[in-house]
Amino acid sequence: MTQRRMAVVLSGCGVYDGTEIHEAVLTLLAIEEAGATWHCFAPDVDQMHVIDHSRSAVAGGESRNVLVESARIARGDIHDLAGYDPADYDALVFPGGFGAAKNLSDFAVNGPAGTVNPDVAAAVAATQSAGKPLGFICITPASVGAMTLGSRGVTLTIGTDAGTAEAVEACGATHIDCPVEEAVIDRKHKVVSTPAYMLGPGVADVRKGIKELVDEIISLCE
Amino acid sequence: MTQRRMAVVLSGCGVYDGTEIHEAVLTLLAIEEAGATWHCFAPDVDQMHVIDHSRSAVAGGESRNVLVESARIARGDIHDLAGYDPADYDALVFPGGFGAAKNLSDFAVNGPAGTVNPDVAAAVAATQSAGKPLGFICITPASVGAMTLGSRGVTLTIGTDAGTAEAVEACGATHIDCPVEEAVIDRKHKVVSTPAYMLGPGVADVRKGIKELVDEIISLCE
Repeated sequence: MTQRRMAVVLSGCGVYDGTEIHEAVLTLLAIEEAGATWHCFAPDVDQMHVIDHSRSAVAGGESRNVLVESARIARGDIHDLAGYDPADYDALVFPGGFGAAKNLSDFAVNGPAGTVNPDVAAAVAATQSAGKPLGFICITPASVGAMTLGSRGVTLTIGTDAGTAEAVEACGATHIDCPVEEAVIDRKHKVVSTPAYMLGPGVADVRKGIKELVDEIISLCE
Repeated sequence: MTQRRMAVVLSGCGVYDGTEIHEAVLTLLAIEEAGATWHCFAPDVDQMHVIDHSRSAVAGGESRNVLVESARIARGDIHDLAGYDPADYDALVFPGGFGAAKNLSDFAVNGPAGTVNPDVAAAVAATQSAGKPLGFICITPASVGAMTLGSRGVTLTIGTDAGTAEAVEACGATHIDCPVEEAVIDRKHKVVSTPAYMLGPGVADVRKGIKELVDEIISLCE
């Protein structure tokens, strides 16, 4: 059987200003457990801001780079998303965290009417055009998935939060409620999503939905 | 059955200057899967330095706090290690990463003749005195375990690296070689250790040894 190669897009390192760390690691774990390999990517841009996670407050005067901080999760092996080519991979996956709504797009500030980072938008469009599957975890079905693929009528889940579901549908996408241990599969568009920490409550719950998402993505690879 | 409460000691956020992120998340996952709960602790001290993980180089002029950065892995729920009381927990676990040899002790600079952070030393001693189990992952059997408990003749593993094994034995501890998917159990001292990324190579390999370590620690709880 072909060994599948998965590209994972990070948005920093830490739930409040970057990638949700548990979700990222559980994504890499599920990929390896499925017999596939992973490479991490991130846009080479400054974070929207730095949050002191010990007191949930903006750390004034500090600036950090999304790619540099994402490298912490990738153990140094990080690639600039600008160089991503879907020909080199079988699928593209986005773990969540506020960074995905602050650094990959400005969804956290401007909602579904905001804009998506151009490297992120290009990576999603190129993967979709190549007929390869995409995975969206946690807030990324709203902050990346709906904002890039909504007009194509893609079906997504962010769990059960009514306001965020409404934002997904404002982009033209269809939202389906989903529990944390499951994933929603849009076979027509080859898009899989799972709520993760949009619902929580713990690592072991999030683990189940992410494993399901990764396994479904791999089954969608041709 | 009693729900076990595990204290996990972090040393920052990122393999080269803090906690190895995969190991920390896999520890929390295994704890929840075993039906136990976790709380994360860290010493409130500055990191030895900040490493730009995208190019494995010291980031000049930057300073970060171990507790503040550790909070990223704990999703904000971090406690000062100075306030740790073994009466509140059933076991104490140390994930690895260079931070455990730079910030929890100065093993990375001074080897086994160096010194351990006083809050770390006190937490280990109090847990051992209370007859509760301790877990050491990756480099921490050397940088924390042997340096605090070596003189008691504890048995530990850091995998198969001869130089690090020698450093463990220089503290009075006994070293046993161990593959990544297994753990070494010292039942007399209630100490469990596993090599994790001292051997690697991947997340799924490290996952097995850490799950074994957590399960063995829980079986040692009275």
